[in-house]
Amino acid sequence: MKFCSSCGHTVNVETPRGDHLPRHVCPACQTIHYENPRIIVGCIPVWQDQILICRRAIEPRHGYWTIPAGFMENGETVQDGAAREAYEEALADVEIGSLLAVVNVLHTHQVHMMFRARLRNPDVGAGPESLEVKLVRPAEIPWPDLAFQSVRFSLERFLEDRAAGREPVHMHTLP
Amino acid sequence: MKFCSSCGHTVNVETPRGDHLPRHVCPACQTIHYENPRIIVGCIPVWQDQILICRRAIEPRHGYWTIPAGFMENGETVQDGAAREAYEEALADVEIGSLLAVVNVLHTHQVHMMFRARLRNPDVGAGPESLEVKLVRPAEIPWPDLAFQSVRFSLERFLEDRAAGREPVHMHTLP
Repeated sequence: MKFCSSCGHTVNVETPRGDHLPRHVCPACQTIHYENPRIIVGCIPVWQDQILICRRAIEPRHGYWTIPAGFMENGETVQDGAAREAYEEALADVEIGSLLAVVNVLHTHQVHMMFRARLRNPDVGAGPESLEVKLVRPAEIPWPDLAFQSVRFSLERFLEDRAAGREPVHMHTLP
Repeated sequence: MKFCSSCGHTVNVETPRGDHLPRHVCPACQTIHYENPRIIVGCIPVWQDQILICRRAIEPRHGYWTIPAGFMENGETVQDGAAREAYEEALADVEIGSLLAVVNVLHTHQVHMMFRARLRNPDVGAGPESLEVKLVRPAEIPWPDLAFQSVRFSLERFLEDRAAGREPVHMHTLP
């Protein structure tokens, strides 16, 4: 951030009075521009014994496999966002279930919230951000070609929990 | 947002190609300025049979009671943020426990994440954003004078769960 989004003046970096961190502050209109972590919402959609995965058509990690996930939007719930991403990336109609994982991703300033989910039908296909999508059995998950560590963490916990017949929420932090 | 924070040009509101929502887009440098929900992190700190609450010294809801909570910062985990807020608002040294509630607050574009927590000692006091803080028994909680619906929801679920000896996570949405 170089310019004030409210008045267009150049901003300074300073710690406002009563605050403890440096912020972008406008010396003309006094607006303090806070920057906070963003939420990534995603889910593991299941059809019978198969899991829906998507091969990314966009950077970062173009060509690698992921579960449907993306930035939460204003005005939606975390669950609605996770369902929306499943539709956008895989044309999938999902019913969002329990919260599976909350992953702090410190270097990207993100919190990933992943849900268990059920496909209402097996009709899926590549949305504009996917090269291809497919339903895979656990043994077919392309572990070395997963796009993100939070996706690997979520899939591992999901499979362990399903085998054990439980649905806890897992907290995790990545550097 | 009226001006591009990257180059200072006035921004337009338009739906970028391949997107599905209107964004602030800079016609000079092409930057798309996304706005996403922010995360509020908080906790219910407990000392023996008492709960720590804070009376707000700031707007919104000046003078009303809350649990320690505030905006998550870049570079911290949700748990660290919740502990930091307890220290800032109530000079409280807390150990963060399990995730209690995730509350979508649609009209403020926020997601509130509340944790169970344990006070490491009963030495608490009002930080700069609090008029006063106190340890109260459940029967002493000032229900009509709570600051936010997400605080009421969290306290209600916390007390029910503690009586039942369980620690689930509760999902909730406020308009």
